Amino acid sequence: MKLLEERIVKDGKVFPGNILKVDSFLNHQLDVNLFNEMGKEWYRLFKDSGVNKILTIEASGIAIASIVAQHFNVPVVFAKKSKSRNIAGDVYSVVVKSFTHGNENHVIVSKDFLNPGDRILVIDDFLAQGCALMGLCDIIKSAGAEVVGAGIAIEKAFQPGGDLIREKGIRVESLAKIKEMHDDGSIVFC
Amino acid sequence: MKLLEERIVKDGKVFPGNILKVDSFLNHQLDVNLFNEMGKEWYRLFKDSGVNKILTIEASGIAIASIVAQHFNVPVVFAKKSKSRNIAGDVYSVVVKSFTHGNENHVIVSKDFLNPGDRILVIDDFLAQGCALMGLCDIIKSAGAEVVGAGIAIEKAFQPGGDLIREKGIRVESLAKIKEMHDDGSIVFC
Repeated sequence: MKLLEERIVKDGKVFPGNILKVDSFLNHQLDVNLFNEMGKEWYRLFKDSGVNKILTIEASGIAIASIVAQHFNVPVVFAKKSKSRNIAGDVYSVVVKSFTHGNENHVIVSKDFLNPGDRILVIDDFLAQGCALMGLCDIIKSAGAEVVGAGIAIEKAFQPGGDLIREKGIRVESLAKIKEMHDDGSIVFC
Repeated sequence: MKLLEERIVKDGKVFPGNILKVDSFLNHQLDVNLFNEMGKEWYRLFKDSGVNKILTIEASGIAIASIVAQHFNVPVVFAKKSKSRNIAGDVYSVVVKSFTHGNENHVIVSKDFLNPGDRILVIDDFLAQGCALMGLCDIIKSAGAEVVGAGIAIEKAFQPGGDLIREKGIRVESLAKIKEMHDDGSIVFC
């Protein structure tokens, strides 16, 4: 998606260690008009897939997913991160490793909000190692629901997550796929 | 706001200790159509206040704030919760006590995204003790920006937060104000 790639080039900042900071428009300050254009594009791609719910993960996926949900006219469910396994409620739970933060989170979703027969589109801001997305797909399968696909804003295509998930037969539509990032700040898209 | 009150009565669940669970539509599963109606109402109330940015706090404020921001055509900034003070970046930081979770969080916002002259509308899902809202207002003032007001989905008016913040001269517009909640599940609105 040209608009997103241009915005990444304009406002993204590359730091050593393949870190791309896009917090001025994607995950700290949020450009909801941009998210709206992203929603249009994902709707074009997934409109015939019978999506009846969108699943994302806190915190930075929530804003994108909520704007996108308006295009599909469906509710959003966001998975919650917890340091400890939630035993109080009746939840689906997976452990997800975060390479960015160097820790592990229990990721939980209430059993009330995912059901057999649900056709779920997963939305998230980044795909790199794929741990979060894989965890969300596992939760959806635990619920007996179907993963229609994943809409990712920015895929670091030089990291293995995208390939791993596509090899499992899951449709991944990334609006900006980064082939290379360099310490001089330059970014090459696929 | 009648629509929200009716939804709380229909789908909210009261638990002992003045706990109101609204996770089927407000803060785990998200009804974006409802948020859109809430956005219309807050826009009606604040449209002449020169709002140029919306501030909220992760996680459950983000979805509401993002939908609402479309009505004002402004960006959202969400404050991040951190167990430890972030010393890596240049951030505004306050400590906020959570009565719900019985802990304290450092709440941080990058200095890049709040500026003198900004006219900020704060959006959040709940107002009870007022600690989170007060913390966000303190951050806004630290930045030399102005708090135009606060848009709250559900105010527990039997707890002190709303009064404390209004006494400071801050305009608070809560779309559902709960006067009383009872263990039999009944809810009385103001």
